[in-house]
Amino acid sequence: MKKHVHGGNVYQHKNVTDFSANLNPLGMPESVRDAAIGGVCRSERYPDPDSLELREAIAAAAGTEASKVICGNGAAELIFLLAAAKKPKKALLPAPTFAEYETALSACGCECVFYRLKEETGFCLKEDFIEAITEGTELVYLCNPNNPTGVLTEKTTLLRILDRCRSVGALLVIDECFLELTGKKELYTMEDQLSGGSLFLLKAFTKTYAMAGLRLGYGLTEEQELLDQMNGLRQPWSVSLPAACAGLAALKETAYVKRSVDYISRERKWLSERLRSFPMKLYEGSANYLFFYCDRKGLWEALLSRGILIRDCSNYRGLSKGYYRIAVRTHEENEALIRVLKLCFS
Amino acid sequence: MKKHVHGGNVYQHKNVTDFSANLNPLGMPESVRDAAIGGVCRSERYPDPDSLELREAIAAAAGTEASKVICGNGAAELIFLLAAAKKPKKALLPAPTFAEYETALSACGCECVFYRLKEETGFCLKEDFIEAITEGTELVYLCNPNNPTGVLTEKTTLLRILDRCRSVGALLVIDECFLELTGKKELYTMEDQLSGGSLFLLKAFTKTYAMAGLRLGYGLTEEQELLDQMNGLRQPWSVSLPAACAGLAALKETAYVKRSVDYISRERKWLSERLRSFPMKLYEGSANYLFFYCDRKGLWEALLSRGILIRDCSNYRGLSKGYYRIAVRTHEENEALIRVLKLCFS
Repeated sequence: MKKHVHGGNVYQHKNVTDFSANLNPLGMPESVRDAAIGGVCRSERYPDPDSLELREAIAAAAGTEASKVICGNGAAELIFLLAAAKKPKKALLPAPTFAEYETALSACGCECVFYRLKEETGFCLKEDFIEAITEGTELVYLCNPNNPTGVLTEKTTLLRILDRCRSVGALLVIDECFLELTGKKELYTMEDQLSGGSLFLLKAFTKTYAMAGLRLGYGLTEEQELLDQMNGLRQPWSVSLPAACAGLAALKETAYVKRSVDYISRERKWLSERLRSFPMKLYEGSANYLFFYCDRKGLWEALLSRGILIRDCSNYRGLSKGYYRIAVRTHEENEALIRVLKLCFS
Repeated sequence: MKKHVHGGNVYQHKNVTDFSANLNPLGMPESVRDAAIGGVCRSERYPDPDSLELREAIAAAAGTEASKVICGNGAAELIFLLAAAKKPKKALLPAPTFAEYETALSACGCECVFYRLKEETGFCLKEDFIEAITEGTELVYLCNPNNPTGVLTEKTTLLRILDRCRSVGALLVIDECFLELTGKKELYTMEDQLSGGSLFLLKAFTKTYAMAGLRLGYGLTEEQELLDQMNGLRQPWSVSLPAACAGLAALKETAYVKRSVDYISRERKWLSERLRSFPMKLYEGSANYLFFYCDRKGLWEALLSRGILIRDCSNYRGLSKGYYRIAVRTHEENEALIRVLKLCFS
């Protein structure tokens, strides 16, 4: 059976409960859906090529200026644009992490050097990462919390990494797409470090507002030349009108985000406790997904045959067979997962 | 007052009747809008990264196979992807034509050579274009009908151009985004020439179904390696779920397209006859837009101050001040345009 490069492919696996994509289990806020529908109804016109209203709203929420915001057709578009604009000769990436960083960089002829996150230390990114940033390093990617492990990198470590990037002239790209749903954004975000330069933060609406199908992400940076280059390499209308409208509505849903964070926190705890009763090794994570190792053969297939799709992580660089990721879903769905797991292990 | 690189920017010019974007004046079919709304409601999931159902439907409509179809976030995404994947050293383009071909090619370091369409011959592309395709030419762009002139290039000419491209090893890219609404698609499309290779056809849903805000276009080619390269250079989910759903519904709207073609044909004739009574030179075109020259100073501003936005074409390479493009809109809107023009010229 073909497994996919990414989670969330419910087109080849129909009628499953999808634990393979990491979206807010409370779903898309009604206001976001209504705004996107309003956007469809106005879609006889082109979207604003400057995404001005949206960039201003994002900037206001992030305490910065619209000129420092770039919107994209999902954060994924920005990962590719960034690689094509920056064209680094050498980049440093952790392994395992989200595959598209490497894919985008390699497509532009960049040599990717990997810092191996170690199983023994629970896949934590340690301070020796800094030593791997050398004179030739032009770009450093980090995902916080990391995908697929859910592990957060400490802010003190991030600050030292940024210092090191600045001293060797490398750009530090931190993907904070999953940070909001950890509930610890204030402690970990690097938004307050933007003004010093050499930093690019990737953000997405996808996960926090469960709007993966609409495609909307953004980047924050003070690297104006890089933004100009990125804008020069893409079409004028990459953000659709429904996505732009949805984004504007989403930014007002602060109470919904708080409720979601609390819900996920409870359910992560509930699910973690139950998963520990199975013969698997569960890693400590802070994200809206959980990461575990289990050497039981055919687990993915056994779950799928019972209507549960999880993420087989064996195709992540730095991982092997037996690593899996599951999203924290609604309580009802999480109960179903535990029930089915009991069947699989009985 | 700032004019825009493209038409259709109704964000800086609010509450205008927009003649600057070339969309189907009958608007978005209801079935397309409903399908897009359905797509929004299912957008808690990711879009299909392979756009398989949509590519199969497009292929069936075009009489080809899904493997020869690539979908994009508007045809504009494909223009940029094509340039980045093909990386031609030298390309031949007519002037004037749609600006994004040059923008995308130049961004990839391509030298653009221009074939000047001449005012004296009504901006027709003549057979001497073929002589401009030389050994070093790696890519040739054509837009049929051309934007902004609306002039069609004869199929016999296109076939000779394709022959020449094949003999020098160049890829011929023909943008047929406006062809459907001319009502002459069967006579001019190069879809029947795909099997011989060296040909890439660009198509869009944007104009025909007035769904510019949703972003959906596609390409047809037998150049499999090129398609693989293009897919390797982009994110997995570039086509949003509302756009994919809208596209599937649009392909069924053949009667709507026929009705639109008839309507546009009548209105183009009506509008052309009336425009000829003004001190301007109207060029013969076959598209859902009209192209004219008028040396009356401040025409664009005079129309805008009366609520009519037209396309000032002076920023097209190969054109100068005084060239304008207007979309063929609904009869009521076209009447309003003529009324306001009378005021401007009184």
